[in-house]
This record gives sequence, structure tokens and C-alpha cells, in this order.
Amino acid sequence: MRIALLGGTGSIGEGLALRWAFDTNHEVLVGSRDPERARAKAEEYETELDSRGVDCAVKGFANEMATDRADVVVLAVPPYHVRSTLRAVADRLDEDAVVVNPAVGMARDDDGNYRRDPPSSTRSLTELVAETAPGDVSVVGAYHTVPAARLANLDAELGIDVPVVADDDDAKETVAMLTEAIDGLRALDAGDLSAAGEVEGLTPLVLTLAANNEGLHDLGVTFH
Amino acid sequence: MRIALLGGTGSIGEGLALRWAFDTNHEVLVGSRDPERARAKAEEYETELDSRGVDCAVKGFANEMATDRADVVVLAVPPYHVRSTLRAVADRLDEDAVVVNPAVGMARDDDGNYRRDPPSSTRSLTELVAETAPGDVSVVGAYHTVPAARLANLDAELGIDVPVVADDDDAKETVAMLTEAIDGLRALDAGDLSAAGEVEGLTPLVLTLAANNEGLHDLGVTFH
Repeated sequence: MRIALLGGTGSIGEGLALRWAFDTNHEVLVGSRDPERARAKAEEYETELDSRGVDCAVKGFANEMATDRADVVVLAVPPYHVRSTLRAVADRLDEDAVVVNPAVGMARDDDGNYRRDPPSSTRSLTELVAETAPGDVSVVGAYHTVPAARLANLDAELGIDVPVVADDDDAKETVAMLTEAIDGLRALDAGDLSAAGEVEGLTPLVLTLAANNEGLHDLGVTFH
Repeated sequence: MRIALLGGTGSIGEGLALRWAFDTNHEVLVGSRDPERARAKAEEYETELDSRGVDCAVKGFANEMATDRADVVVLAVPPYHVRSTLRAVADRLDEDAVVVNPAVGMARDDDGNYRRDPPSSTRSLTELVAETAPGDVSVVGAYHTVPAARLANLDAELGIDVPVVADDDDAKETVAMLTEAIDGLRALDAGDLSAAGEVEGLTPLVLTLAANNEGLHDLGVTFH
């Protein structure tokens, strides 16, 4: 499978790129608005993988190029860039491509972190992505609560759950399969896109818990 | 400490009553609108505890009587009864009593469970309880995601986390202490009352995950 990580030079993109390259044989493409930056980061990832005896090609491209012919496209960008990133690549998306949104709109003050509803009638950023995506493209919400730094550290154990939301069962199944291909991640069916708000609310909660409780950082969530 | 469980005849009330009676020496009072029902359930709990070699008195009262001189008052009632229950006992609350809200407003459809904002300007039921509570009484949000049936089964292992929100640090500390006195529960500081919405959003998510994923039921949450 060909996976494009748009914004794959950022922390969650780095983690997913390294883990998929390390744990699977899927083709991983790192996308960035700046193709030079994408290539530099892809080389960095290759060096890291090579040092662990994994010989695989991670390629860097402009987001549009990375999207071309990708089976799965992950919007690994900050929440306020999600829609513009998706619009910039929309005409490159295969009609059977799966678009994954891991981003969450958040507000922060001295007392904690809060989910911020998107500037629309939708209750979640994932639903807004679905509104923005071209016709037949399936949108999946996942990876909202995967701790990026821990994901990017291949020595770190994960053992965490990934709630996945989508209206399209096949798309949900594809992302669940890719998720469980990463050692230490378990995909859980968290319902359809209308439940994305509850999943996205976990992200600010996890950040607040890490800030307020000694010894807790880079938190993941497990349901058991 | 004297703990009143209003609606202590329901499932979350039963779980908290049994666990506090089993694991601690705190005085546990079971409250109900119907004092006969409260007494019957309290006897049931005593029988259960007695069968495990624990000799302790659990007393049943009308909610108003249970509230009288209680240090901690838990609103273990359905979400749509939280405010009326609190109003009914308001003039019995000690001014230094701590009121705990474990309830969450939820809506359900064929596709899942969703958090329902309370009918007010507050973002969460816990904040609405704080608005409703008399002057100096401190309100704490906790136990929203403790699986009731598992809590009530003293043979069941818990090993789960309890996010606690409050504006008053002393009240939060009291509830955290009571929480950790139950074997297998860890209290986590989840911020002030304005973060209650994020905590309450966990409840419908956990119910949806249990409904959608084979082998998962009576789910708790762990952050690690």
C-alpha cells in the first residue's frame, strides 16, 4: 500500500513514517509544502532506519506529488492547516483514496487544554475534513491520541489504543489494519464520523493530564 | 469520613458503596428518594460484605437524611435527576461539604453514543452542578468512566484511572484520596471545572467502544 504523510516532516508524521517503514513493507511517502524539506526529512528517516538494520526507501515530495496515486493520505498537519492542505491536493486524490485526519482543534489557557469546535456546523475537525474532501473520497479519523514523540522513538513501547471513526466501513478497516501493523497499537472501532467529537476530546484531556500529574508525559490511552 | 451516596441504590452507587465499605473505614450512607428502598439496598450490601468477612454497617436513608452531616455527597443519580436531587438536599449540605458529580448527559442513536450539552450555557453537567450548588459548597467531577458493574463486583480487578476535575484544590484532593483508597483506582488531576466537558466526553466514547468491539465490555480507561 502507498501511504502519503502530508506534513510528514512534523512530529506525528515522523512517528507514523518511522513506524510504518520499520514495522511494515508499505511504501511511505513524506509530503511537505516544501519538497526540499520533505526530501531532507525522508533522508533523516532513512538514516535512522538504516542504523537499525532496516533498508527501505522513504521518499520526500511536495504534498501534491506525494498524494498522487497514494492509497492512504494522512493529514499530519496542524489543525489550522488541515483544510488548506486537503484543498491543495484535492485534484490529485484517487477517488478510492482514504484520507485520514489525526488533527484536533484545541484552545489552551492557564488551567488546561480544551477542544475547540471547528468554525462550521460540524462538531469535529474530522467531520469538517469530510465536508471538505472531494466526492467519493472516504475520510477516517484516527491517531488523535497517539503520543507523537513516543511514536517517533522506535525504542519506546507503545501498548496503546487508537479509536478509529469513519462512515465507510472499508476505509475504517484499511486504517485499522495499517494501525495494527504498527507494533503496540490496537485499533478500536469508535463509531461513525458523528462520534469524532468524542474521540477528538481525548486529545486536550490527555495533554491536561500530562501537564497536571507528576511522572506522566507522552500519554497514550488504553481501554480495558 | 462520612460519605453519602445519593441514588446509592443504582449501579454506580452500589459499586462505590461496596468498594468504600470493603476497602476503607469510611462511613458509607446509601441515599434514595425512598428510604425503604435505601434501607433494603444497604442491607443487601451488608450481606454481600458479610459474605466476604467484612463486618461493617452500611445505612440506608432518604437522600436528605443521608446528606445531613456528610463530608462528601455523591450524586449517583441519572443525569436528568442530578439537579433536582441536589436542590432537594441543598439545605442539608454542610458548607464545607464536597459534592461529587459522576453523571454525564448523553444521547444515543443507532450509530453510537454522544455527549449532550446541558440545557444551559455550561459546557458540562459537572459545571451545571456547580452552578446549582449552594454558595460555599465545592463541586468535584469524578467517576464518569468507572464501569459500574465491574466496580460493584468485588472480585473484579480494576486497574483504571479516574480523571478528577474541580476548581477547589482541597476538594479535589479529598476526592483523589477517597478514589485511591479503592484498590485498583488511580486518581488523575484533569484540571478545573472548565475541563469537565473533555472528561465527560469519555463516557459516550467508552460505551461506543464497548458496543462496537468484540470482547470489550465494562470498559475503564488508563492513561500511560
